[in-house]
Amino acid sequence: MAKKVKMRDVVVLGVGLHPFGRFPPEKTYIDLAKEAVSKAIKDAGIKWHDVQVAMYSHVREQASSAGLLVFQEFGSHGIPMIGNIENACSSSSTAVWLATRLIGTGLYDIILVAGAEKMPRGPLTSPLRYSPERYLGTGVMMGLYAFMARRYMREYGAPIEAIAQVSVKNHKNGAINPYAQYKKVFTLEEVLNSRMIADPLTLYQCCPTSDGAAALVLCAADIASKYTSKPLVKIAGSALHIQKYSDRKKCIPQNTVRAAEEAYEQAGVSPKDVRLAEVHDAATIGEIVQIEALGLCPEGEGWKYTMQGKTEITGTIPVNPSGGLQAQGHPLGATGARQIAEITLHLRGEAGERQVPGNPKVGVTECAGFGGVSTVHVLVRQD
Amino acid sequence: MAKKVKMRDVVVLGVGLHPFGRFPPEKTYIDLAKEAVSKAIKDAGIKWHDVQVAMYSHVREQASSAGLLVFQEFGSHGIPMIGNIENACSSSSTAVWLATRLIGTGLYDIILVAGAEKMPRGPLTSPLRYSPERYLGTGVMMGLYAFMARRYMREYGAPIEAIAQVSVKNHKNGAINPYAQYKKVFTLEEVLNSRMIADPLTLYQCCPTSDGAAALVLCAADIASKYTSKPLVKIAGSALHIQKYSDRKKCIPQNTVRAAEEAYEQAGVSPKDVRLAEVHDAATIGEIVQIEALGLCPEGEGWKYTMQGKTEITGTIPVNPSGGLQAQGHPLGATGARQIAEITLHLRGEAGERQVPGNPKVGVTECAGFGGVSTVHVLVRQD
Repeated sequence: MAKKVKMRDVVVLGVGLHPFGRFPPEKTYIDLAKEAVSKAIKDAGIKWHDVQVAMYSHVREQASSAGLLVFQEFGSHGIPMIGNIENACSSSSTAVWLATRLIGTGLYDIILVAGAEKMPRGPLTSPLRYSPERYLGTGVMMGLYAFMARRYMREYGAPIEAIAQVSVKNHKNGAINPYAQYKKVFTLEEVLNSRMIADPLTLYQCCPTSDGAAALVLCAADIASKYTSKPLVKIAGSALHIQKYSDRKKCIPQNTVRAAEEAYEQAGVSPKDVRLAEVHDAATIGEIVQIEALGLCPEGEGWKYTMQGKTEITGTIPVNPSGGLQAQGHPLGATGARQIAEITLHLRGEAGERQVPGNPKVGVTECAGFGGVSTVHVLVRQD
Repeated sequence: MAKKVKMRDVVVLGVGLHPFGRFPPEKTYIDLAKEAVSKAIKDAGIKWHDVQVAMYSHVREQASSAGLLVFQEFGSHGIPMIGNIENACSSSSTAVWLATRLIGTGLYDIILVAGAEKMPRGPLTSPLRYSPERYLGTGVMMGLYAFMARRYMREYGAPIEAIAQVSVKNHKNGAINPYAQYKKVFTLEEVLNSRMIADPLTLYQCCPTSDGAAALVLCAADIASKYTSKPLVKIAGSALHIQKYSDRKKCIPQNTVRAAEEAYEQAGVSPKDVRLAEVHDAATIGEIVQIEALGLCPEGEGWKYTMQGKTEITGTIPVNPSGGLQAQGHPLGATGARQIAEITLHLRGEAGERQVPGNPKVGVTECAGFGGVSTVHVLVRQD
């Protein structure tokens, strides 16, 4: 839909995370976000005053224009700030989508995107919570995911064990990620035998409620070397697509399919070039349908890839080396930026114990993609 | 701060409003927004499927990605949608700021911006509500405005009658605006004798809590004539500036001063060219300091201009011909877009009974500008 406009290359110059977890009330979203922003600024090698636009994302209740409260802690040097760019689970990835365009078209050189959340307790409601079907359990996200899991199992002959294996793998990854909320390894039996939330999804197949923050410094590629000697990771593709939940006819999320097509085309890469991915495993089944939508495995084979260990850190196409939403946690407004930070670290070779081996050059992130919005970003290391 | 990039001209192709007021709970923000969007689409002469990006703004609690619930009522044709662009009172004007850049740089041709709000009862809290000073009354917006009024009165020798006259004028204007929440005329005595809210600001000097919606269709100027034969109103200047409330040293909001300078420069006009303005009169004193910040009168003379009738519809520089926030109302997320819609109608000669006479060609809007963000848009009719 967008016109063909010549765009400058945009790179991820700096990333910063506050560990995900549960923090006491006196630790506010401002505290979380400040730490993530400070780290991103430092990682980028810039000063706060180099930032030309600052955008903030959250989903659950915070102050109005909450981002201003965060950013003004660093000082106010007359730059445009946006207090909240919100697009459900795709909020900070939507801010990245906007920032990529504001830099790519030459308007700005350096934009900061931050997302932070303190999640309230309790299940997350779904876009269908006002619909008549909500009495069937579709009024909460895990109810929707449960229907998806059942449908997927029937359509593709997947056993629940294959779906639950996503949780086993992601908790194994989270256990070696210092930023993860859960650092506990589970057996398949433990996952399957945990408390039933929405049949067939047990507790350990549903992401936790989380607090946390993530920040990114995005920069025009042509000036990036002024600030850093780290490998530059280009945002080679950036796409945002919508699907009305009730229009969904297939297990595979068509919003992600279309966003992936657009992002791959922008990046000039094919799914075969992708060496690792961070995808939206709010429920275990989410990871399986999203890797299919991204073309990282054939339709209906995500569960087989999972069973065969192909999506492990040591597999052919590592998925959620961070631990994903399952183990790293899911503070909604932070997740999109967090995924891009994670891939950036792997492409730089800075992901520590959880580093995807083989010096990967191309990674992809997929955020949300279930209830409405899907954002896909293709990241390519500049060598 | 933004680099000099050649931008295409962007025009307001269509405007749509749902009347502001108080509506029963069964009339949702979706209903309000749908009506505004439908009218803007119709006014623009486009079909929904011509929209290439859709952005929504609200401030108070709605669903997450509320804009998707609004826009998907019109159909889902694969365009990017953003569920909420929030920047306190400047929310939908921040969306316009973004949209102007996405169109200006050539990425998109037609973007829809909508804002809607159902305000809860009660006073609006201020950015200082967590600060120690809140015990002095600064924790609510009208407390801050009261301090501002006192300071202004002392610094410039303005009597409270001059400040209250803003309310008299704006209610007179609102009484002939079919979209206004209040259509009642007040005498100066009635304004001054209404219930005290935050001394010296009485009830009729404080904007009401309001429900309402506004929508704009923005379009690349070079294709606009395909859709409409109405006069085209160009967004000639668009600027967003920030000031931390606690950094404020003067009555005149410096964020508006800087935003106005930038927007006038972009537009190539001077304050002397401006023939009418819509400004943020959340409290009466707001209108006076904002017209000074916009350069529409000398510093410290806003109150004299008001007393002398210069800001009346028939005056030398009509301000808030709509009735402003005082009489038209202030559903936060809708106000920024509503102001731009109002100026567009006047520049087209379509403002009905409240039309500013003399075939005005240049108008300006100023949104928020008190607690943090100020957005200024300069609108110029293309002849």
